[in-house]
Amino acid sequence: MFQIVTETRDAGVTWPEGFTAAAGRAGLKSEGDDVAIIVCHDWAAAAGMFTTNLVHAPCVDWSRAVVQQGRARAIVCNAGNANACNGPKGDGDNKRLAMALGEHLGVDAQAVATASTGVIGRPLPVDRITAALPGIVAGAGRGPATDQAVAKAILTTDTRPKQIALQVTSPHWGGDIRLGAVCKGSGMIAPRLGPPHATMLCFITMDAKVHPAHLQNCLAHAVDRTFNRLTVDGDTSTNDMVLALASGVSHEVPTSEGALTDLTDTLEYLCGVLARECARDGEGATKLVEVVVAGAQSEEQAALMARTIADSLLVKTALFGCDPNWGRILAAAGRSGVPFAPDRADVLLGGVLVCRGGSAVNYDADEAKRALSRNEVRVEVRLHQGSATATVWTCDLSYDYVKINAEYHT
Amino acid sequence: MFQIVTETRDAGVTWPEGFTAAAGRAGLKSEGDDVAIIVCHDWAAAAGMFTTNLVHAPCVDWSRAVVQQGRARAIVCNAGNANACNGPKGDGDNKRLAMALGEHLGVDAQAVATASTGVIGRPLPVDRITAALPGIVAGAGRGPATDQAVAKAILTTDTRPKQIALQVTSPHWGGDIRLGAVCKGSGMIAPRLGPPHATMLCFITMDAKVHPAHLQNCLAHAVDRTFNRLTVDGDTSTNDMVLALASGVSHEVPTSEGALTDLTDTLEYLCGVLARECARDGEGATKLVEVVVAGAQSEEQAALMARTIADSLLVKTALFGCDPNWGRILAAAGRSGVPFAPDRADVLLGGVLVCRGGSAVNYDADEAKRALSRNEVRVEVRLHQGSATATVWTCDLSYDYVKINAEYHT
Repeated sequence: MFQIVTETRDAGVTWPEGFTAAAGRAGLKSEGDDVAIIVCHDWAAAAGMFTTNLVHAPCVDWSRAVVQQGRARAIVCNAGNANACNGPKGDGDNKRLAMALGEHLGVDAQAVATASTGVIGRPLPVDRITAALPGIVAGAGRGPATDQAVAKAILTTDTRPKQIALQVTSPHWGGDIRLGAVCKGSGMIAPRLGPPHATMLCFITMDAKVHPAHLQNCLAHAVDRTFNRLTVDGDTSTNDMVLALASGVSHEVPTSEGALTDLTDTLEYLCGVLARECARDGEGATKLVEVVVAGAQSEEQAALMARTIADSLLVKTALFGCDPNWGRILAAAGRSGVPFAPDRADVLLGGVLVCRGGSAVNYDADEAKRALSRNEVRVEVRLHQGSATATVWTCDLSYDYVKINAEYHT
Repeated sequence: MFQIVTETRDAGVTWPEGFTAAAGRAGLKSEGDDVAIIVCHDWAAAAGMFTTNLVHAPCVDWSRAVVQQGRARAIVCNAGNANACNGPKGDGDNKRLAMALGEHLGVDAQAVATASTGVIGRPLPVDRITAALPGIVAGAGRGPATDQAVAKAILTTDTRPKQIALQVTSPHWGGDIRLGAVCKGSGMIAPRLGPPHATMLCFITMDAKVHPAHLQNCLAHAVDRTFNRLTVDGDTSTNDMVLALASGVSHEVPTSEGALTDLTDTLEYLCGVLARECARDGEGATKLVEVVVAGAQSEEQAALMARTIADSLLVKTALFGCDPNWGRILAAAGRSGVPFAPDRADVLLGGVLVCRGGSAVNYDADEAKRALSRNEVRVEVRLHQGSATATVWTCDLSYDYVKINAEYHT
C-alpha cells in the first residue's frame, strides 16, 4: 500500500525533481497563454496512452513514436488548435514544433513529445508558436507559479486549471517519490485510450527511477480505471493523450510486484482525481455525477452499463433537473447489452433508495430532491448478479452545454 | 415495383377496409384523449417488432405473444403511463387491459395486443382505463375524424400527430391494397426493434390478405431500414413497438418473391415517412437531420457510422447552431468502430462540400450557413471504401431539449 505524505493542488508538473516548465502566448487562443513546455533535465523514462479514434491528429502518432523509444526529454503543447484533419501540412507542422523545441534544448526532435488541443481542421499557425518558443524556453523554471501558468495555458473550454502534486511513500520503494500532473478536458470528452494510443490531455511527471516498460504498464492500468471511465459528452477526441515522464532523480521503483502495484495505485489515485475534475468541469456541468454499477458479473459489464447510463441524455437532463427519474436509469441499463435480471435491480440516487427489485419504492421525495441538488451526486445501480463493481464519472446536461457548443463557431 | 395510387396524411388506421377505431379519455395525461383502440372486424394476420431493451414493459411480452399466434383482433393503447418497472402488478394491469377490451369485443384476451407509453415506474391506473372503455368501444367507427383522434390520443411529448394512408398497387398482387398507419415518438427514441421484439409506437393496418409469417418478414425488413435507423436521443425505450394487422378484405399478396418484395418496399416507404416525422418532431428539434454514409464496405458499417454521427452531442449542437463544424463529424466517424481511411473521406453539409480527403476545403461560409439553416439538413460522409450506403434520421439538440427533459418531473 502506498501512503500519501503530501497532497496539494497548488503545485503540479515541476513538483518532482528534475523538471522545469514554462508557458507563453503564441496567439492561438483569443487571450492568455496557449503554449506550454515541460522539460526534463536529462532523459526521462516515458510512457503514454493515446486516443483510439481512427481520426486523430499528427501529435498522436508522433508522441506515440516518442514514448515507444522508452524515453523523452520534453513535451510541447499548444491549445486553441488541434492540428487535426490538416493533411500532410498538419504532419509537417507538428514535426516543426518538436524540432523547434528540440533545437532550443540541443536534442533531437524525436526526444520531444507534442500535444495539441482546440478546433479541428484549421491549419496550425506554427510560425507563431516557433516565434514564441525562444522566450518560453528562456523563462523555464520551477515552482507553483510556473505550474499554475502551465495548467492555464493548456485549457480550452475548461473553466479552471486542473493539477495535483503528491509526495507518496511505499515500503516497496527506495524512499518517497514525488509526482506532479496537469490535465485539461471539458468537452469532446470520452477518452478511450489505448496503450502506445483524449482532447483530454494529461501530463504526469515524477522523480522516481522506473523502467519505461513498467511505467507504461502501470500507466495503462491506471488510465483504464480513470480517464477511460470518464465521459462528458460521449465524444472521443482526435487528440486525447496521457503522457508520463519519470526523471529518475529520487528513488528507484524496483521490479517487484509490490513496488509496481503501489506505483499503479498511486497513478490510479492521481488520474482519478484529475478525471473527476474533468467531469466536474464538463461543459455546462452543474454537478459531478458518479455512476456506480455494483453486483455485476464482471468489471467489464459493470463499466459498460455505467457508461451507458452516464451517456444517456435523458439521465443527464433529469440530473440537471434534480429529478429522481430512476426509470430512465433502468431503461439505459436495459439497453447497455449487459445481461441482468431487471426484477432484482435496485437504484439509489445520492444514497436514497428509489427503486428496489426493478419497481418503485416509497421514498421521501424531498430527501431525493435534496440529494440530487448537491454538486456531487452518486447514481448507484445494484444488480445482485455477482460481485463486480465499476464507476464511471460524468456530469449533467444543462442549457449551458447547448450554449457552449451551439454558439461556438468554427 | 409497387406504385402509389393515393397518399394522404388526412387519414390513418381506418383507411383500409376491415378496421374501426376510437379514442377516449381515462385521465392519464393532463388533458385530452389518452386511450385508443384499433379493431379488426374479424381475425387479422398479425406481425410485430418489439424493443430489444432488456428492461421492458409487460405490454411488450404480451403483444409479442399475441402476434406469435399469427393473428389478432384488436390493439388497445394508452399514453401517459408506460406501465414499465411496475413488477407483477404491472403484468396484471396489462392483462386486465387486454381482457377488458376482449370482453367488449367477445374475444379472448389473447386476441388483443396492448401498448403503453409515458412515465416509467408509476402504477397504471387501470381502473380508469377499463371504466372508459365501454364508451370508447361504443364510439368506434371509421373515417378521418376517427383516425385523427387516435393519432392524437397516443401522443406524449410529441407536438403533432403522425399518420399516413396509402393506396398502392403492384402487378404481383391481386389488385390495389390500402394501408393506414399511426405513429408516436419524440423522446427516448432510438428504437432497436427485433422480430417478435421501440416508446416509439407504430400501428399499421392494411386490407390485404397475407400470411402472418410473410407479413412478419416484410415488416422486419422494413423496420430495420426505417425505425431502426431513427434516433432522437440515443435512448432506446422500454415500450417501443410496431404492430401490423392485415384484415384480408381486399386482395391477396401471393407467396411470390415479387409480391412480397413489393409489400416490403411499401412498408419501408410507409415506415420511412413516419420515422422521419418522429425525427422532425424530436424533443426540442428545430430541424430534421438526415445522416448519410456512402462509399462504405457494407451497409451495416455505413449504418453504424451514420448512427454514431447522429448520436454525437457535439454534432447535434453544431447543427442547432448552424455551424459547419465538420471536424466534429469526422471525429464521431473515427470513433464509430468502422475501419476507413480518414484521408479519403469527404463531408458535405446540405450539399456543400466542406471537407475533401479528410482536410478542409475552401467553401462559401454563407452558403453553408444557409444550407444548415433549413428545416431539413443532409449530412453526408463519403468514405470511398466501397459501394454501400445507409441513412440514419435524427434531429438537432436545442435548449428546448434540455427544457423538456430537465423540467419534466416524475
